[in-house]
Amino acid sequence: MRSFNRGSSDLRPVVLTPGVSRHAEGSCRVEFGHTQVLVTCSVEERVPPHVLGTGAGWLTAEYGMLPRATHERSSREAAKGKQTGRTMEIQRLIGRSLRACVDMKTIGVRTLTFDCDVLQADGGTRTASITGAYVALVWALQKLKTKGLLSGTPKLTPVAAVSVGLMKGVPLVDLDYEEDSTADVDLNIVALQGAKLVEVQGTAEHGYFEKAGLDAMLEAGLAAIAKLNEAQAKAMP
Amino acid sequence: MRSFNRGSSDLRPVVLTPGVSRHAEGSCRVEFGHTQVLVTCSVEERVPPHVLGTGAGWLTAEYGMLPRATHERSSREAAKGKQTGRTMEIQRLIGRSLRACVDMKTIGVRTLTFDCDVLQADGGTRTASITGAYVALVWALQKLKTKGLLSGTPKLTPVAAVSVGLMKGVPLVDLDYEEDSTADVDLNIVALQGAKLVEVQGTAEHGYFEKAGLDAMLEAGLAAIAKLNEAQAKAMP
Amino acid sequence: MRSFNRGSSDLRPVVLTPGVSRHAEGSCRVEFGHTQVLVTCSVEERVPPHVLGTGAGWLTAEYGMLPRATHERSSREAAKGKQTGRTMEIQRLIGRSLRACVDMKTIGVRTLTFDCDVLQADGGTRTASITGAYVALVWALQKLKTKGLLSGTPKLTPVAAVSVGLMKGVPLVDLDYEEDSTADVDLNIVALQGAKLVEVQGTAEHGYFEKAGLDAMLEAGLAAIAKLNEAQAKAMP
Amino acid sequence: MRSFNRGSSDLRPVVLTPGVSRHAEGSCRVEFGHTQVLVTCSVEERVPPHVLGTGAGWLTAEYGMLPRATHERSSREAAKGKQTGRTMEIQRLIGRSLRACVDMKTIGVRTLTFDCDVLQADGGTRTASITGAYVALVWALQKLKTKGLLSGTPKLTPVAAVSVGLMKGVPLVDLDYEEDSTADVDLNIVALQGAKLVEVQGTAEHGYFEKAGLDAMLEAGLAAIAKLNEAQAKAMP
Amino acid sequence: MRSFNRGSSDLRPVVLTPGVSRHAEGSCRVEFGHTQVLVTCSVEERVPPHVLGTGAGWLTAEYGMLPRATHERSSREAAKGKQTGRTMEIQRLIGRSLRACVDMKTIGVRTLTFDCDVLQADGGTRTASITGAYVALVWALQKLKTKGLLSGTPKLTPVAAVSVGLMKGVPLVDLDYEEDSTADVDLNIVALQGAKLVEVQGTAEHGYFEKAGLDAMLEAGLAAIAKLNEAQAKAMP
Amino acid sequence: MRSFNRGSSDLRPVVLTPGVSRHAEGSCRVEFGHTQVLVTCSVEERVPPHVLGTGAGWLTAEYGMLPRATHERSSREAAKGKQTGRTMEIQRLIGRSLRACVDMKTIGVRTLTFDCDVLQADGGTRTASITGAYVALVWALQKLKTKGLLSGTPKLTPVAAVSVGLMKGVPLVDLDYEEDSTADVDLNIVALQGAKLVEVQGTAEHGYFEKAGLDAMLEAGLAAIAKLNEAQAKAMP
Repeated sequence: MRSFNRGSSDLRPVVLTPGVSRHAEGSCRVEFGHTQVLVTCSVEERVPPHVLGTGAGWLTAEYGMLPRATHERSSREAAKGKQTGRTMEIQRLIGRSLRACVDMKTIGVRTLTFDCDVLQADGGTRTASITGAYVALVWALQKLKTKGLLSGTPKLTPVAAVSVGLMKGVPLVDLDYEEDSTADVDLNIVALQGAKLVEVQGTAEHGYFEKAGLDAMLEAGLAAIAKLNEAQAKAMP
Repeated sequence: MRSFNRGSSDLRPVVLTPGVSRHAEGSCRVEFGHTQVLVTCSVEERVPPHVLGTGAGWLTAEYGMLPRATHERSSREAAKGKQTGRTMEIQRLIGRSLRACVDMKTIGVRTLTFDCDVLQADGGTRTASITGAYVALVWALQKLKTKGLLSGTPKLTPVAAVSVGLMKGVPLVDLDYEEDSTADVDLNIVALQGAKLVEVQGTAEHGYFEKAGLDAMLEAGLAAIAKLNEAQAKAMP
Repeated sequence: MRSFNRGSSDLRPVVLTPGVSRHAEGSCRVEFGHTQVLVTCSVEERVPPHVLGTGAGWLTAEYGMLPRATHERSSREAAKGKQTGRTMEIQRLIGRSLRACVDMKTIGVRTLTFDCDVLQADGGTRTASITGAYVALVWALQKLKTKGLLSGTPKLTPVAAVSVGLMKGVPLVDLDYEEDSTADVDLNIVALQGAKLVEVQGTAEHGYFEKAGLDAMLEAGLAAIAKLNEAQAKAMP
Repeated sequence: MRSFNRGSSDLRPVVLTPGVSRHAEGSCRVEFGHTQVLVTCSVEERVPPHVLGTGAGWLTAEYGMLPRATHERSSREAAKGKQTGRTMEIQRLIGRSLRACVDMKTIGVRTLTFDCDVLQADGGTRTASITGAYVALVWALQKLKTKGLLSGTPKLTPVAAVSVGLMKGVPLVDLDYEEDSTADVDLNIVALQGAKLVEVQGTAEHGYFEKAGLDAMLEAGLAAIAKLNEAQAKAMP
Repeated sequence: MRSFNRGSSDLRPVVLTPGVSRHAEGSCRVEFGHTQVLVTCSVEERVPPHVLGTGAGWLTAEYGMLPRATHERSSREAAKGKQTGRTMEIQRLIGRSLRACVDMKTIGVRTLTFDCDVLQADGGTRTASITGAYVALVWALQKLKTKGLLSGTPKLTPVAAVSVGLMKGVPLVDLDYEEDSTADVDLNIVALQGAKLVEVQGTAEHGYFEKAGLDAMLEAGLAAIAKLNEAQAKAMP
Repeated sequence: MRSFNRGSSDLRPVVLTPGVSRHAEGSCRVEFGHTQVLVTCSVEERVPPHVLGTGAGWLTAEYGMLPRATHERSSREAAKGKQTGRTMEIQRLIGRSLRACVDMKTIGVRTLTFDCDVLQADGGTRTASITGAYVALVWALQKLKTKGLLSGTPKLTPVAAVSVGLMKGVPLVDLDYEEDSTADVDLNIVALQGAKLVEVQGTAEHGYFEKAGLDAMLEAGLAAIAKLNEAQAKAMP
């Protein structure tokens, strides 16, 4: 039996709580079951060199895990003086995903930085981060609009993400930590509303997988993303 | 008028919520008004070299601030590859404070690490961390006891901390960020229950202060620490 | 017209030259068109802590790019004191890919480290690295066998990798740098011989892609991998 | 009996030798008994960003300990690539202390950097550094005046510092290394001439201390600081 | 018998292959026997601060060794986050040597960076680097000239380098790794065509050496450098 | 006229003051004119891995420059988190020089670390360091002997070093900073007593030098080293 008594294609309970930070322009606390991520969206009125002069804005992300977000305490990256390869990989993925959901020419010449900090980890921290970051983004843009800092209306399509595993040939949606450790394949899907794929990252943890398995996982994942879009819609300003 | 409509010797609303982490042996979310710190206590069955062979255990602390815990986003220490002097100073203070409240020969040959991560900052993050860490400590020791991992009963005295400022000669207890920025003096007091001082750190932010001002601040601070001890008592296992 | 006068499903000229290093246990210089990677496989008679005591061996990879492997000189990671997120992401991918092609219980209690250093870059450096590393692996195992250091015969399945892009709906196999910069989607496929998928990483560089596009890319990519397996077969000991 | 045959409220022999550096604008070699610190004050005609445009100057400090300044050799911070928390804490304290003794609007738009390098350590390196840095400061300002680089006369009040311990209830002034290791409490006091407190940092090394003990230490410390001010006066230009 | 059946004053086979990089403005693959170094010369239209405003250009060098260029794998400097002292020493030597062979006022206000990456090491990597870098320099300047980016003709004198050892009193030219490990003295000579010394670095590996030995090594080394100049002449544009 | 009214072959006033550190096993403050270096020799009862099991001891050196040892303040290496190439080069040279003057099999299985910290710089800091380190070495060995920690008598030959420049063809001995900046060639010579060369490092700062110039510099340098040996003899235990 899966955690939360759910079937193979069910998400864990999803809670999206926007506005949890007094300081950030946009924020969202996102829970996928026991996984909890605090996402803030910070607006700064400058852009990185490679965007300068194009008239467009920029979105970027940083990811971190509190040392005891995990079963065993892991050492603090700030103390080691080095981010792990895993951290870098995840924050690059979150950044690309967010940049795919908005036309950056419509947000003004500014940078929006998403800080995704995992308070508690139980699998799916990167997919929860992306799903919550979209909510934080919309609230941040709303705040800019209210302040009269946006000339037009940014073009946005909801983006969300989910992990899917393959366990003895059956696709399991939204893996928790234990499932993630035992699944044969781990697939992370990022998509815009309407089954528009943005990122597909599948890894055989043991052995390999075949095209049919990939197809089954994609179908289950895209259905779950549609449900995440519904949850996001309820957390809009 | 001070925030939360309080008088000069009043604390902000204090909320101590133990057991907020599924994974950590002990944990406490501590709020001093808008300041929020997540404290976890992790138990590891090894001790650092300088304690090895003494039969005693060890307590240590790490401190971090989420990038957007503050009004303006500050850069992530893990990304810069370096902890600031302020971070190091604070985590050393937290560690010393916790080591003062327990006889380390009574906790077994193990290390207890307190991770104090500031989710939202509005002044007093180090004093909130110490106050919450004591709660996390008691819960962690309780868990060890329940599991039969403690041979005796650890000797403990509650420790708590508060900041006091001096504004035009009047001591103000538990400064928020705005008060902290404008006070003439900033004093952090750490004490064991019963007005037993563990640390006193006073800094003239502008000019200097006199003995009489220090006395007034200490008196107000120790009274506030007694109230923090009451709040801690309600959060015990 | 594509570089090397090739059609949309053609690889660039592939050259696999084993035995290019006097010192390494196994080595292969791999060229995918103008992309050139020097791969060495180094054998060390120890394993990392997480493998210790399992009786198995371990495979790992490191990746680097010479500063002027690219059109513009990029700064030397050793001089900056930091590997980029891209470097870390790629070397993690190479390591996982190689670990998928061999039963690590059959190689003895030792670590095989693949150093993939890009001498010249023109797109596809990670896929070339994986394809060449398999050749270096087989030569290194052969050397161990010759020296009597292998008790049995390692279980191996050839692994290779290719990138596929989508340009106006048409899948293009083995993108060079210019194509890579302009393609709408970039998909990296790692597979064992026989269309057994190990990794699938697809990213929409502009906008998004649909399931049909992914299917087309996968089909073209797996066909190309079969051709890479043929090239690998010719470079075997 | 205390070192140098002194009573509980006596300082060790204090030697302040200004002008020891050919290159620095101001300098002072300070000895508190066997503790020796070389302080230089360097003037640079620029200010850090947070001061820019205010018309004021800035003072800052760096602290270091030669590897064999101590009983056992400690590793070189430059070789480890990292300053310890203790180093950072001390240099922040020195900087704050110096900024308290002068009106920074009266020194011109420039930065004065105090390098405090411990040649030999026997307790009290931070208090010796502050006491000697004041002397170096006055000489540096004198040099600027002579060169016609100061428009007015900087407003200065002498600053000095001393440590006080509590040993079985008795306050001991100016602890040497051995006393520092065994005292129950360690208090560092920084004050402007006239018992004007700038910093008070007291730590219970074992157990705790009470208000009465703090009062006794402060009284003894302020008396000692008055004597340090006399020694400083003799080292003025 | 020495490697390659050579006499005490003979170089190993020298191969200089210019133009091996598609991207770099100048490049040369240099082989001294089994030692192989890939040298690229990159032109950037900016100069470091200390040259700015002088009208001159600048030449600088970086050196690296692939992890398995050596008999045993050495760890990757980029992964350790630190270049070794040996690496720094060598790249400083290469930079000085190249700056000695050209009048930097005649190359325009630009920086030429020589990346010397050792693909395979068998002694003499620094001397091979210098010898090959001169070839890469000439090709890069030729390219600038062809593009009309040079106003005049740069003043150049060929520079080359060789190592000489002393084995039981006999000077051995161009030591390979094994000889280098056993020689009593190791001398690196860098000279401009015509026995004009630029650098002389001699180290007694065991014991010491006398003036007569130094004289003998210098004579043999300068003769070998003349032969390297001949090889360079054949690799000119 | 040269500084200190000296002729071309004269050293600056040399002062060697042993025993300046209370803590170090051996120490020497060395002055070459205005250049001042504090050298300590620390004995630790362990050896690095590559010496372990050989029965021999080891000598190593570290070098540092106080930030304001120089005309302009340079940034602190510990604060930058990185030693410069110059620092590394110098400390490697000092280490090699000291290892040449003693048979390491005769000092016991221990490491002697020489910390050479430049208090004031005016040219020749590396040669002063080596010359003073020999004195510190002898005192440290004497201390070991007195304590009964040496089984035999270490075999020692005095080592010293000097710089020589070439100014319009004339060799100048022991260059100060200004001469060092303007000389055409800079040669550092390290030798054992009796004109036994250990290191010869000559660099043409402008242009080149010829064999005759090198010979003249060597002759002048070796004569000066003989005088340094005399100064060392007077500072022996």
